[in-house]
Amino acid sequence: MNVLIVYAHPSPTSYNAALKDAAIKALLNRGASVKVSDLYAMNFNPVAMMEDTIVPTNPEDVPEDLRLEREKVKWADFIIFQFPMWWTSVPAIMKGWFDRVFAANFAYGPGVYNHGNFKGKKAMLSFTTGGKHLDSYGPKGLKGEMSERLFSIHHEVLYFSGMEVIEPFIVPTGVSVEERRDYLEQMQQRMAELEQQPTIKFPVLEDYVGGQLQTNSLEKVNVLSI
Amino acid sequence: MNVLIVYAHPSPTSYNAALKDAAIKALLNRGASVKVSDLYAMNFNPVAMMEDTIVPTNPEDVPEDLRLEREKVKWADFIIFQFPMWWTSVPAIMKGWFDRVFAANFAYGPGVYNHGNFKGKKAMLSFTTGGKHLDSYGPKGLKGEMSERLFSIHHEVLYFSGMEVIEPFIVPTGVSVEERRDYLEQMQQRMAELEQQPTIKFPVLEDYVGGQLQTNSLEKVNVLSI
Repeated sequence: MNVLIVYAHPSPTSYNAALKDAAIKALLNRGASVKVSDLYAMNFNPVAMMEDTIVPTNPEDVPEDLRLEREKVKWADFIIFQFPMWWTSVPAIMKGWFDRVFAANFAYGPGVYNHGNFKGKKAMLSFTTGGKHLDSYGPKGLKGEMSERLFSIHHEVLYFSGMEVIEPFIVPTGVSVEERRDYLEQMQQRMAELEQQPTIKFPVLEDYVGGQLQTNSLEKVNVLSI
Repeated sequence: MNVLIVYAHPSPTSYNAALKDAAIKALLNRGASVKVSDLYAMNFNPVAMMEDTIVPTNPEDVPEDLRLEREKVKWADFIIFQFPMWWTSVPAIMKGWFDRVFAANFAYGPGVYNHGNFKGKKAMLSFTTGGKHLDSYGPKGLKGEMSERLFSIHHEVLYFSGMEVIEPFIVPTGVSVEERRDYLEQMQQRMAELEQQPTIKFPVLEDYVGGQLQTNSLEKVNVLSI
């Protein structure tokens, strides 16, 4: 089992770093092979130029940093993204990892969604967010539905590229030190049972005609469940 | 009238550049003062470090690039964001502009939303996206509701910081050359009548208790309208 952890936090003593380290430990303990892209430590360049948005025909034209990241993605059965949620999204350095690494002819093209190029791989978001209980989310929540906030990544990046999406692991950072320790244990448990983690059920491309969901068997609520 | 255009596209001959130039021309024609943050041309650094997330007490500790951007934001009555939509969000260089420029004690804190520090300013997203007719969006759309895709910026960045949000200007890039020209004219018309552009009606913070919308006078559908 090959697991890639894409990690983005500026401080190596952060709680995000502790979650990343807990995941690595649990994965190594069970005999998994682990690679880490520590984007801040790598000084990863997140600023896409036009030529980064498509994989060039000549392999020698691929920048070395993107070649290395794409090799890790190809190698991985599972990809874990560990980050602090900023402005209800990923830090810029991770957005740029998607902008540059997940280029056309690599992550997608000609197929997308259930025909995307990463079919057979699974991905999971693991992140911290402010507050104590995610109590500002929900159908009448100030910040709307968490599933909607994550849809741009879950559905439009990960599933778009063919991956199955594991339910996210979310830690509200306003909790006590004891609860934070408990979350670290939960993370290790998740990694110990990574293949059994439930995934989000998204409709397949064949359920849509002209971009609109046709089937009655899948309600929109399922599309957006976390 | 002071207008700041925050522009992110790697190519100066792009259609996004043409939209930006059309906006500048129309604004100058009507006598507005215009400043532009051309993030690619400026080689703007989008990678936030811990110290960037809060404005330091000592003004001399503020990095020069952030000081300059914050001066422009303070100066502006209107802020226009021009960008190509990538992965249903802004390019990383613009996400990092939010991560670094909109720090605590500048954009927000102690107040947020209708008590945010940018009260009295208005912002508008203007972007290109693939396809011809936005036909993959909607309540049963493959990509969900466009308003939900934009909520993370509209509600959680711009309104969070106190700004009113003008309805977005969206160009599907699959249209014909003639239609593209027509969109450039529409952009100029918008800039000519910028104060009259309709804004999105979001509930005020007082409508929420414990993060949940309490009033019956505002339906959730209004919260998410574009």
